[in-house]
Amino acid sequence: MTAAVNTQGRLTIVGLGPGGPEYRLPIVNKELEKATDILGYHPYIAQAGPFRADQRVQGSDNREEMARAHQALQLAAQGRRVVMVSSGDPGIFAMAAAVVEALAPQVRAVELVILPGISAAQLAAAKVGAPLGHDFCVLSLSDNLKPWSQIEKRLRLAAEADLVMALYNPRSRARPQQFIEALAILRSCRAPQTPVVLGREVGRAGEQLVVTSLAEVDPEQVDMRTVLIIGSSQTRVLPRQDDGQWVYTPRWYPDSQSSA
Amino acid sequence: MTAAVNTQGRLTIVGLGPGGPEYRLPIVNKELEKATDILGYHPYIAQAGPFRADQRVQGSDNREEMARAHQALQLAAQGRRVVMVSSGDPGIFAMAAAVVEALAPQVRAVELVILPGISAAQLAAAKVGAPLGHDFCVLSLSDNLKPWSQIEKRLRLAAEADLVMALYNPRSRARPQQFIEALAILRSCRAPQTPVVLGREVGRAGEQLVVTSLAEVDPEQVDMRTVLIIGSSQTRVLPRQDDGQWVYTPRWYPDSQSSA
Repeated sequence: MTAAVNTQGRLTIVGLGPGGPEYRLPIVNKELEKATDILGYHPYIAQAGPFRADQRVQGSDNREEMARAHQALQLAAQGRRVVMVSSGDPGIFAMAAAVVEALAPQVRAVELVILPGISAAQLAAAKVGAPLGHDFCVLSLSDNLKPWSQIEKRLRLAAEADLVMALYNPRSRARPQQFIEALAILRSCRAPQTPVVLGREVGRAGEQLVVTSLAEVDPEQVDMRTVLIIGSSQTRVLPRQDDGQWVYTPRWYPDSQSSA
Repeated sequence: MTAAVNTQGRLTIVGLGPGGPEYRLPIVNKELEKATDILGYHPYIAQAGPFRADQRVQGSDNREEMARAHQALQLAAQGRRVVMVSSGDPGIFAMAAAVVEALAPQVRAVELVILPGISAAQLAAAKVGAPLGHDFCVLSLSDNLKPWSQIEKRLRLAAEADLVMALYNPRSRARPQQFIEALAILRSCRAPQTPVVLGREVGRAGEQLVVTSLAEVDPEQVDMRTVLIIGSSQTRVLPRQDDGQWVYTPRWYPDSQSSA
Protein backbone atom coordinates (compact mmCIF):
# COMPACT_ATOMS: atom_id res chain seq x y z
CA MET A 1 0.00 0.00 0.00
CA THR A 2 1.39 3.40 -0.98
CA ALA A 3 0.41 6.70 0.54
CA ALA A 4 -1.87 8.73 -1.71
CA VAL A 5 -0.12 11.88 -2.89
CA ASN A 6 -2.98 14.28 -2.54
CA THR A 7 -1.29 17.00 -0.54
CA GLN A 8 -1.53 19.58 -3.27
CA GLY A 9 0.94 22.37 -2.82
CA ARG A 10 1.08 25.74 -4.43
CA LEU A 11 3.73 27.58 -6.38
CA THR A 12 3.33 31.30 -6.93
CA ILE A 13 5.74 33.20 -9.12
CA VAL A 14 5.63 36.82 -8.07
CA GLY A 15 6.93 39.99 -9.66
CA LEU A 16 8.65 42.33 -7.21
CA GLY A 17 8.63 45.18 -9.69
CA PRO A 18 11.68 47.33 -10.22
CA GLY A 19 12.74 48.04 -6.68
CA GLY A 20 11.25 49.20 -3.44
CA PRO A 21 8.04 48.05 -1.71
CA GLU A 22 6.10 51.09 -2.99
CA TYR A 23 6.10 49.41 -6.42
CA ARG A 24 5.04 45.98 -5.19
CA LEU A 25 1.44 44.81 -5.52
CA PRO A 26 -0.54 44.07 -2.34
CA ILE A 27 -1.45 40.65 -3.77
CA VAL A 28 2.27 39.85 -3.97
CA ASN A 29 2.86 40.84 -0.35
CA LYS A 30 0.03 38.55 0.71
CA GLU A 31 1.66 35.59 -1.06
CA LEU A 32 5.03 36.35 0.51
CA GLU A 33 3.44 36.36 3.97
CA LYS A 34 1.80 32.98 3.42
CA ALA A 35 4.83 31.27 1.88
CA THR A 36 6.50 28.34 3.60
CA ASP A 37 9.38 28.43 1.10
CA ILE A 38 10.85 31.35 -0.83
CA LEU A 39 13.13 30.72 -3.80
CA GLY A 40 14.89 32.99 -6.22
CA TYR A 41 18.03 34.71 -7.39
CA HIS A 42 19.95 36.05 -4.34
CA PRO A 43 19.43 39.79 -4.88
CA TYR A 44 15.69 39.35 -5.47
CA ILE A 45 15.41 37.38 -2.23
CA ALA A 46 17.14 40.28 -0.46
CA GLN A 47 14.71 42.70 -2.13
CA ALA A 48 11.65 40.64 -1.10
CA GLY A 49 12.65 40.10 2.54
CA PRO A 50 12.97 40.13 5.46
CA PHE A 51 11.28 36.81 6.17
CA ARG A 52 10.13 35.07 9.33
CA ALA A 53 12.20 32.38 11.05
CA ASP A 54 9.61 29.73 10.10
CA GLN A 55 9.99 30.49 6.39
CA ARG A 56 12.63 28.57 4.43
CA VAL A 57 14.57 30.87 2.16
CA GLN A 58 16.79 29.59 -0.60
CA GLY A 59 18.69 31.91 -2.88
CA SER A 60 20.31 30.65 -6.03
CA ASP A 61 22.50 31.79 -8.87
CA ASN A 62 21.08 33.67 -11.86
CA ARG A 63 22.00 31.08 -14.45
CA GLU A 64 20.22 28.15 -12.78
CA GLU A 65 16.76 28.97 -14.06
CA MET A 66 15.53 25.53 -15.14
CA ALA A 67 17.01 23.86 -12.04
CA ARG A 68 15.26 26.44 -9.85
CA ALA A 69 11.98 25.92 -11.72
CA HIS A 70 12.11 22.14 -11.23
CA GLN A 71 13.02 22.50 -7.58
CA ALA A 72 10.17 24.91 -6.91
CA LEU A 73 7.66 22.58 -8.57
CA GLN A 74 9.00 19.59 -6.62
CA LEU A 75 8.67 21.43 -3.32
CA ALA A 76 5.11 22.43 -4.17
CA ALA A 77 4.33 18.84 -5.20
CA GLN A 78 5.37 17.83 -1.68
CA GLY A 79 2.63 20.08 -0.33
CA ARG A 80 4.69 23.20 0.45
CA ARG A 81 3.47 26.70 -0.25
CA VAL A 82 6.28 28.01 -2.43
CA VAL A 83 6.89 31.52 -3.70
CA MET A 84 9.44 32.18 -6.39
CA VAL A 85 10.50 35.81 -6.51
CA SER A 86 11.32 37.55 -9.76
CA SER A 87 12.38 41.09 -10.49
CA GLY A 88 10.06 43.21 -12.60
CA ASP A 89 7.30 41.14 -14.17
CA PRO A 90 7.95 37.37 -14.07
CA GLY A 91 6.17 37.10 -17.42
CA ILE A 92 8.63 39.43 -19.21
CA PHE A 93 12.07 37.86 -19.74
CA ALA A 94 11.87 36.19 -16.35
CA MET A 95 10.94 33.01 -14.51
CA ALA A 96 7.31 32.38 -15.53
CA ALA A 97 8.10 30.87 -18.94
CA ALA A 98 10.79 28.62 -17.41
CA VAL A 99 8.37 27.28 -14.79
CA VAL A 100 5.55 26.60 -17.24
CA GLU A 101 8.09 24.89 -19.49
CA ALA A 102 9.10 22.72 -16.50
CA LEU A 103 5.51 21.64 -15.83
CA ALA A 104 6.08 17.91 -16.36
CA PRO A 105 3.02 15.64 -15.98
CA GLN A 106 4.08 14.48 -12.50
CA VAL A 107 3.90 18.02 -11.07
CA ARG A 108 0.79 19.24 -12.91
CA ALA A 109 -1.37 18.78 -9.83
CA VAL A 110 0.49 21.69 -8.25
CA GLU A 111 -1.54 24.86 -8.05
CA LEU A 112 0.48 27.31 -10.13
CA VAL A 113 -0.20 31.04 -9.88
CA ILE A 114 1.65 33.86 -11.59
CA LEU A 115 1.40 37.43 -10.30
CA PRO A 116 2.65 40.25 -12.51
CA GLY A 117 4.83 43.20 -11.58
CA ILE A 118 5.98 46.50 -13.02
CA SER A 119 8.67 45.80 -15.60
CA ALA A 120 11.78 47.98 -15.88
CA ALA A 121 10.71 49.59 -19.15
CA GLN A 122 7.42 50.71 -17.61
CA LEU A 123 9.06 52.57 -14.74
CA ALA A 124 11.80 54.03 -16.95
CA ALA A 125 9.09 55.25 -19.34
CA ALA A 126 7.00 56.75 -16.52
CA LYS A 127 10.01 58.61 -15.12
CA VAL A 128 10.82 60.33 -18.42
CA GLY A 129 7.26 60.86 -19.70
CA ALA A 130 5.48 58.52 -22.08
CA PRO A 131 7.84 57.10 -24.72
CA LEU A 132 5.72 53.91 -24.88
CA GLY A 133 2.54 55.88 -25.51
CA HIS A 134 2.09 54.40 -28.98
CA ASP A 135 2.75 50.94 -30.49
CA PHE A 136 5.99 49.40 -29.22
CA CYS A 137 7.97 46.19 -28.93
CA VAL A 138 9.97 44.62 -26.13
CA LEU A 139 13.10 42.76 -27.21
CA SER A 140 15.94 41.10 -25.35
CA LEU A 141 19.34 41.57 -26.95
CA SER A 142 20.81 38.57 -25.14
CA ASP A 143 21.86 35.78 -27.46
CA ASN A 144 22.18 33.25 -24.62
CA LEU A 145 18.92 31.64 -25.70
CA LYS A 146 18.45 32.73 -29.31
CA PRO A 147 20.66 33.23 -32.34
CA TRP A 148 22.08 36.72 -32.87
CA SER A 149 20.84 36.65 -36.47
CA GLN A 150 17.26 36.55 -35.15
CA ILE A 151 17.92 39.57 -32.95
CA GLU A 152 19.29 41.52 -35.91
CA LYS A 153 16.31 40.53 -38.03
CA ARG A 154 13.88 41.71 -35.33
CA LEU A 155 15.66 45.05 -34.91
CA ARG A 156 15.40 45.67 -38.65
CA LEU A 157 11.72 44.71 -38.87
CA ALA A 158 10.78 46.65 -35.74
CA ALA A 159 12.54 49.69 -37.22
CA GLU A 160 10.68 49.24 -40.49
CA ALA A 161 7.40 49.02 -38.56
CA ASP A 162 8.38 52.30 -36.82
CA LEU A 163 7.77 50.76 -33.41
CA VAL A 164 9.24 52.26 -30.28
CA MET A 165 11.61 49.63 -28.85
CA ALA A 166 12.27 48.69 -25.26
CA LEU A 167 15.51 46.71 -25.20
CA TYR A 168 16.41 44.44 -22.28
CA ASN A 169 19.79 42.81 -21.54
CA PRO A 170 21.41 45.15 -24.05
CA ARG A 171 25.11 44.64 -23.43
CA SER A 172 27.06 42.00 -21.56
CA ARG A 173 30.76 42.16 -20.79
CA ALA A 174 31.10 38.85 -22.63
CA ARG A 175 29.81 40.26 -25.93
CA PRO A 176 30.27 44.05 -26.03
CA GLN A 177 30.62 43.99 -29.82
CA GLN A 178 27.01 42.86 -30.29
CA PHE A 179 25.62 46.04 -28.81
CA ILE A 180 27.76 48.04 -31.25
CA GLU A 181 26.24 45.99 -34.06
CA ALA A 182 22.70 46.52 -32.76
CA LEU A 183 23.34 50.25 -32.55
CA ALA A 184 24.67 50.25 -36.13
CA ILE A 185 21.43 48.63 -37.32
CA LEU A 186 19.32 51.17 -35.46
CA ARG A 187 21.41 54.07 -36.75
CA SER A 188 21.01 52.83 -40.32
CA CYS A 189 17.19 52.76 -39.91
CA ARG A 190 16.36 55.80 -37.75
CA ALA A 191 17.32 59.47 -37.67
CA PRO A 192 20.34 60.54 -35.58
CA GLN A 193 18.15 62.78 -33.38
CA THR A 194 15.81 59.88 -32.44
CA PRO A 195 15.32 60.14 -28.66
CA VAL A 196 16.88 57.35 -26.62
CA VAL A 197 16.29 56.70 -22.92
CA LEU A 198 18.82 54.80 -20.83
CA GLY A 199 17.44 53.58 -17.53
CA ARG A 200 19.87 51.88 -15.17
CA GLU A 201 18.78 50.40 -11.84
CA VAL A 202 15.49 52.25 -12.25
CA GLY A 203 13.56 52.37 -8.98
CA ARG A 204 16.60 51.26 -6.97
CA ALA A 205 19.41 52.99 -5.11
CA GLY A 206 21.81 54.26 -7.72
CA GLU A 207 19.11 54.87 -10.34
CA GLN A 208 20.44 56.59 -13.46
CA LEU A 209 18.16 57.97 -16.14
CA VAL A 210 19.64 59.54 -19.24
CA VAL A 211 17.79 61.06 -22.18
CA THR A 212 20.04 61.14 -25.20
CA SER A 213 19.78 60.54 -28.93
CA LEU A 214 20.58 57.67 -31.25
CA ALA A 215 23.60 59.58 -32.57
CA GLU A 216 24.96 60.22 -29.10
CA VAL A 217 24.38 56.97 -27.20
CA ASP A 218 27.64 55.93 -25.61
CA PRO A 219 27.92 52.12 -25.33
CA GLU A 220 29.92 52.61 -22.15
CA GLN A 221 26.73 53.95 -20.50
CA VAL A 222 24.97 50.64 -21.18
CA ASP A 223 25.21 47.30 -19.37
CA MET A 224 22.97 44.35 -18.49
CA ARG A 225 21.18 46.38 -15.82
CA THR A 226 20.17 49.04 -18.30
CA VAL A 227 16.91 49.15 -20.17
CA LEU A 228 16.99 51.16 -23.39
CA ILE A 229 14.01 52.82 -24.98
CA ILE A 230 14.55 53.76 -28.63
CA GLY A 231 12.04 56.24 -29.99
CA SER A 232 10.09 55.89 -33.23
CA SER A 233 10.05 58.54 -35.95
CA GLN A 234 7.32 60.28 -33.92
CA THR A 235 8.92 60.31 -30.48
CA ARG A 236 9.57 63.83 -29.21
CA VAL A 237 11.38 65.63 -26.45
CA LEU A 238 10.26 68.67 -24.48
CA PRO A 239 12.24 70.78 -22.03
CA ARG A 240 11.67 69.95 -18.40
CA GLN A 241 11.61 72.38 -15.49
CA ASP A 242 14.65 70.69 -13.90
CA ASP A 243 16.79 71.12 -17.04
CA GLY A 244 16.12 67.56 -18.13
CA GLN A 245 13.84 66.49 -20.95
CA TRP A 246 10.46 64.87 -21.21
CA VAL A 247 10.16 62.16 -23.84
CA TYR A 248 6.86 61.07 -25.31
CA THR A 249 5.43 59.30 -28.32
CA PRO A 250 2.12 60.85 -29.37
CA ARG A 251 -0.89 58.56 -29.33
CA TRP A 252 -1.62 59.55 -32.95
CA TYR A 253 0.35 58.68 -36.06
CA PRO A 254 0.41 60.86 -39.17
CA ASP A 255 -1.36 59.68 -42.27
CA SER A 256 1.20 58.56 -44.84
CA GLN A 257 -0.74 60.62 -47.40
CA SER A 258 -0.19 63.83 -45.46
CA SER A 259 3.30 63.21 -44.06
CA ALA A 260 6.46 64.01 -45.96
CA MET B 1 1.92 95.12 -9.44
CA THR B 2 0.90 91.55 -10.24
CA ALA B 3 0.92 88.66 -7.79
CA ALA B 4 3.78 86.26 -8.38
CA VAL B 5 2.51 82.89 -9.55
CA ASN B 6 4.77 80.69 -7.50
CA THR B 7 2.22 78.33 -6.03
CA GLN B 8 3.51 75.32 -7.85
CA GLY B 9 0.98 72.54 -7.97
CA ARG B 10 1.43 68.91 -8.81
CA LEU B 11 -0.20 66.60 -11.32
CA THR B 12 0.24 62.87 -10.91
CA ILE B 13 -1.04 60.47 -13.53
CA VAL B 14 -1.56 57.13 -11.85
CA GLY B 15 -2.18 53.65 -13.20
CA LEU B 16 -4.90 51.77 -11.35
CA GLY B 17 -3.94 48.48 -12.96
CA PRO B 18 -6.54 46.14 -14.34
CA GLY B 19 -9.08 46.09 -11.56
CA GLY B 20 -9.20 45.63 -7.84
CA PRO B 21 -7.04 47.24 -5.15
CA GLU B 22 -4.86 44.11 -4.83
CA TYR B 23 -3.28 45.09 -8.16
CA ARG B 24 -2.73 48.74 -7.27
CA LEU B 25 0.71 49.99 -6.22
CA PRO B 26 1.13 51.43 -2.70
CA ILE B 27 2.73 54.53 -4.23
CA VAL B 28 -0.49 55.11 -6.19
CA ASN B 29 -2.65 54.82 -3.08
CA LYS B 30 -0.47 57.39 -1.35
CA GLU B 31 -1.02 59.87 -4.20
CA LEU B 32 -4.77 59.29 -4.15
CA GLU B 33 -4.86 60.02 -0.41
CA LYS B 34 -3.00 63.30 -0.83
CA ALA B 35 -4.97 64.53 -3.84
CA THR B 36 -7.09 67.67 -3.63
CA ASP B 37 -8.59 66.95 -7.08
CA ILE B 38 -9.19 63.65 -8.83
CA LEU B 39 -9.90 63.60 -12.56
CA GLY B 40 -10.53 60.81 -15.01
CA TYR B 41 -12.91 58.76 -17.10
CA HIS B 42 -16.02 57.97 -15.00
CA PRO B 43 -15.49 54.20 -14.52
CA TYR B 44 -11.85 54.70 -13.47
CA ILE B 45 -12.93 57.28 -10.89
CA ALA B 46 -15.37 54.69 -9.53
CA GLN B 47 -12.60 52.11 -9.47
CA ALA B 48 -10.20 54.45 -7.62
CA GLY B 49 -12.67 55.66 -4.98
CA PRO B 50 -14.21 56.18 -2.54
CA PHE B 51 -12.88 59.66 -1.84
CA ARG B 52 -13.16 62.03 1.10
CA ALA B 53 -15.64 64.90 1.21
CA ASP B 54 -12.78 67.42 0.98
CA GLN B 55 -11.55 65.95 -2.30
CA ARG B 56 -12.95 67.32 -5.54
CA VAL B 57 -13.82 64.54 -7.93
CA GLN B 58 -14.54 65.17 -11.59
CA GLY B 59 -15.35 62.35 -13.97
CA SER B 60 -15.38 62.89 -17.70
CA ASP B 61 -16.11 61.11 -20.92
CA ASN B 62 -13.63 58.78 -22.56
CA ARG B 63 -13.20 60.80 -25.74
CA GLU B 64 -12.22 64.04 -24.03
CA GLU B 65 -8.59 63.16 -23.50
CA MET B 66 -6.86 66.37 -24.58
CA ALA B 67 -9.46 68.54 -22.83
CA ARG B 68 -8.95 66.51 -19.65
CA ALA B 69 -5.17 66.81 -19.96
CA HIS B 70 -5.34 70.61 -20.32
CA GLN B 71 -7.79 70.92 -17.43
CA ALA B 72 -5.62 68.82 -15.13
CA LEU B 73 -2.54 70.89 -15.93
CA GLN B 74 -4.46 74.14 -15.40
CA LEU B 75 -5.68 73.00 -12.00
CA ALA B 76 -2.17 72.02 -10.98
CA ALA B 77 -0.86 75.37 -12.25
CA GLN B 78 -3.30 76.99 -9.82
CA GLY B 79 -1.53 75.18 -6.99
CA ARG B 80 -3.86 72.18 -6.59
CA ARG B 81 -2.61 68.67 -6.01
CA VAL B 82 -4.24 66.84 -8.90
CA VAL B 83 -4.38 63.11 -9.59
CA MET B 84 -5.52 61.83 -12.95
CA VAL B 85 -6.58 58.20 -12.81
CA SER B 86 -5.99 55.84 -15.68
CA SER B 87 -6.78 52.17 -16.10
CA GLY B 88 -3.85 49.79 -16.53
CA ASP B 89 -0.59 51.65 -17.09
CA PRO B 90 -1.04 55.33 -18.01
CA GLY B 91 2.03 55.01 -20.24
CA ILE B 92 0.50 52.28 -22.42
CA PHE B 93 -2.27 53.55 -24.70
CA ALA B 94 -3.52 55.86 -21.96
CA MET B 95 -3.34 59.38 -20.55
CA ALA B 96 0.39 59.97 -19.98
CA ALA B 97 1.24 60.74 -23.62
CA ALA B 98 -1.72 63.12 -23.88
CA VAL B 99 -0.67 65.05 -20.79
CA VAL B 100 2.98 65.37 -21.85
CA GLU B 101 1.75 66.50 -25.26
CA ALA B 102 -0.36 69.15 -23.51
CA LEU B 103 2.64 70.51 -21.54
CA ALA B 104 2.53 74.02 -22.99
CA PRO B 105 5.21 76.44 -21.75
CA GLN B 106 2.78 78.22 -19.41
CA VAL B 107 2.15 75.04 -17.38
CA ARG B 108 5.68 73.63 -17.38
CA ALA B 109 6.31 74.79 -13.82
CA VAL B 110 3.80 72.17 -12.68
CA GLU B 111 5.41 69.18 -11.02
CA LEU B 112 4.39 66.28 -13.25
CA VAL B 113 4.72 62.71 -12.00
CA ILE B 114 3.68 59.51 -13.77
CA LEU B 115 3.18 56.29 -11.83
CA PRO B 116 2.89 53.05 -13.77
CA GLY B 117 0.39 50.24 -13.34
CA ILE B 118 -0.15 46.67 -14.46
CA SER B 119 -1.41 46.74 -18.05
CA ALA B 120 -4.18 44.40 -19.24
CA ALA B 121 -1.85 42.22 -21.32
CA GLN B 122 0.38 41.58 -18.31
CA LEU B 123 -2.43 40.24 -16.15
CA ALA B 124 -3.99 38.26 -19.01
CA ALA B 125 -0.57 36.73 -19.68
CA ALA B 126 0.00 35.89 -16.01
CA LYS B 127 -3.39 34.20 -15.73
CA VAL B 128 -2.75 31.85 -18.64
CA GLY B 129 0.98 31.24 -18.10
CA ALA B 130 3.72 33.16 -19.87
CA PRO B 131 2.83 33.92 -23.48
CA LEU B 132 4.94 37.12 -23.33
CA GLY B 133 7.99 35.19 -22.11
CA HIS B 134 9.98 36.01 -25.24
CA ASP B 135 10.21 39.07 -27.53
CA PHE B 136 6.81 40.68 -28.13
CA CYS B 137 5.05 43.79 -29.36
CA VAL B 138 2.11 45.78 -28.08
CA LEU B 139 -0.15 47.26 -30.76
CA SER B 140 -3.43 49.12 -30.68
CA LEU B 141 -5.83 48.19 -33.49
CA SER B 142 -7.79 51.41 -33.12
CA ASP B 143 -7.59 53.66 -36.16
CA ASN B 144 -9.00 56.67 -34.30
CA LEU B 145 -5.53 58.18 -34.13
CA LYS B 146 -3.57 56.44 -36.89
CA PRO B 147 -4.24 55.26 -40.42
CA TRP B 148 -5.47 51.68 -40.82
CA SER B 149 -2.76 51.10 -43.46
CA GLN B 150 -0.12 51.62 -40.75
CA ILE B 151 -1.82 49.05 -38.53
CA GLU B 152 -1.85 46.51 -41.37
CA LYS B 153 1.81 47.20 -42.09
CA ARG B 154 2.76 46.67 -38.44
CA LEU B 155 0.84 43.41 -38.20
CA ARG B 156 2.67 42.07 -41.25
CA LEU B 157 6.11 43.15 -40.02
CA ALA B 158 5.50 41.89 -36.48
CA ALA B 159 4.43 38.56 -37.96
CA GLU B 160 7.56 38.44 -40.10
CA ALA B 161 9.67 39.18 -37.00
CA ASP B 162 7.88 36.26 -35.29
CA LEU B 163 7.00 38.46 -32.32
CA VAL B 164 4.24 37.53 -29.93
CA MET B 165 1.60 40.28 -30.22
CA ALA B 166 -0.53 41.87 -27.54
CA LEU B 167 -3.38 43.67 -29.30
CA TYR B 168 -5.35 46.42 -27.55
CA ASN B 169 -8.63 48.02 -28.70
CA PRO B 170 -9.11 45.17 -31.16
CA ARG B 171 -12.67 45.61 -32.34
CA SER B 172 -15.12 48.46 -32.07
CA ARG B 173 -18.77 48.30 -32.99
CA ALA B 174 -18.14 51.17 -35.40
CA ARG B 175 -15.59 49.19 -37.45
CA PRO B 176 -16.12 45.44 -36.99
CA GLN B 177 -14.79 44.76 -40.49
CA GLN B 178 -11.29 45.92 -39.56
CA PHE B 179 -10.82 43.16 -37.02
CA ILE B 180 -11.77 40.64 -39.70
CA GLU B 181 -9.08 42.16 -41.92
CA ALA B 182 -6.48 42.06 -39.12
CA LEU B 183 -7.34 38.41 -38.49
CA ALA B 184 -6.96 37.66 -42.20
CA ILE B 185 -3.45 39.16 -42.15
CA LEU B 186 -2.48 37.13 -39.09
CA ARG B 187 -3.93 33.95 -40.59
CA SER B 188 -1.95 34.49 -43.77
CA CYS B 189 1.29 34.81 -41.76
CA ARG B 190 0.95 32.30 -38.92
CA ALA B 191 -0.10 28.65 -38.56
CA PRO B 192 -3.78 27.87 -37.84
CA GLN B 193 -2.89 26.22 -34.52
CA THR B 194 -1.05 29.34 -33.22
CA PRO B 195 -2.28 29.86 -29.65
CA VAL B 196 -4.46 32.91 -29.07
CA VAL B 197 -5.52 34.29 -25.69
CA LEU B 198 -8.62 36.44 -25.35
CA GLY B 199 -8.79 38.34 -22.07
CA ARG B 200 -11.91 40.36 -21.41
CA GLU B 201 -12.32 42.51 -18.28
CA VAL B 202 -9.27 40.76 -16.84
CA GLY B 203 -8.99 41.36 -13.10
CA ARG B 204 -12.55 42.70 -12.88
CA ALA B 205 -15.95 41.23 -12.13
CA GLY B 206 -17.03 39.37 -15.24
CA GLU B 207 -13.48 38.40 -16.25
CA GLN B 208 -13.38 36.05 -19.24
CA LEU B 209 -10.23 34.28 -20.33
CA VAL B 210 -10.27 32.07 -23.40
CA VAL B 211 -7.39 30.10 -24.86
CA THR B 212 -8.08 29.33 -28.50
CA SER B 213 -6.19 29.19 -31.77
CA LEU B 214 -5.75 31.52 -34.70
CA ALA B 215 -7.98 29.26 -36.81
CA GLU B 216 -10.77 29.25 -34.23
CA VAL B 217 -10.92 32.84 -32.95
CA ASP B 218 -14.48 34.00 -33.19
CA PRO B 219 -14.69 37.78 -33.79
CA GLU B 220 -17.91 37.83 -31.79
CA GLN B 221 -15.85 36.99 -28.67
CA VAL B 222 -13.81 40.16 -29.16
CA ASP B 223 -14.66 43.77 -28.30
CA MET B 224 -12.90 46.94 -27.11
CA ARG B 225 -12.57 45.55 -23.59
CA THR B 226 -10.69 42.51 -24.83
CA VAL B 227 -6.93 42.20 -25.01
CA LEU B 228 -5.69 39.60 -27.50
CA ILE B 229 -2.41 37.79 -27.27
CA ILE B 230 -1.33 36.14 -30.51
CA GLY B 231 1.42 33.55 -30.14
CA SER B 232 4.60 33.35 -32.19
CA SER B 233 5.71 30.23 -34.06
CA GLN B 234 7.21 29.05 -30.74
CA THR B 235 4.25 29.61 -28.41
CA ARG B 236 2.94 26.38 -26.90
CA VAL B 237 0.03 25.07 -24.92
CA LEU B 238 0.05 22.52 -22.11
CA PRO B 239 -2.91 20.83 -20.42
CA ARG B 240 -3.97 22.38 -17.13
CA GLN B 241 -5.29 20.55 -14.10
CA ASP B 242 -8.64 22.39 -14.36
CA ASP B 243 -9.20 21.25 -17.98
CA GLY B 244 -7.95 24.57 -19.32
CA GLN B 245 -4.64 25.18 -21.01
CA TRP B 246 -1.41 26.87 -20.06
CA VAL B 247 0.13 29.04 -22.76
CA TYR B 248 3.79 29.97 -22.82
CA THR B 249 6.47 31.18 -25.17
CA PRO B 250 9.83 29.61 -24.36
CA ARG B 251 12.63 31.99 -23.45
CA TRP B 252 14.82 30.36 -26.09
CA TYR B 253 14.45 30.51 -29.87
CA PRO B 254 15.68 27.78 -32.20
CA ASP B 255 18.67 28.42 -34.38
CA SER B 256 17.59 28.95 -37.98
CA GLN B 257 20.34 26.50 -38.96
CA SER B 258 18.81 23.69 -36.94
CA SER B 259 15.09 24.47 -37.41
CA ALA B 260 13.07 23.23 -40.35
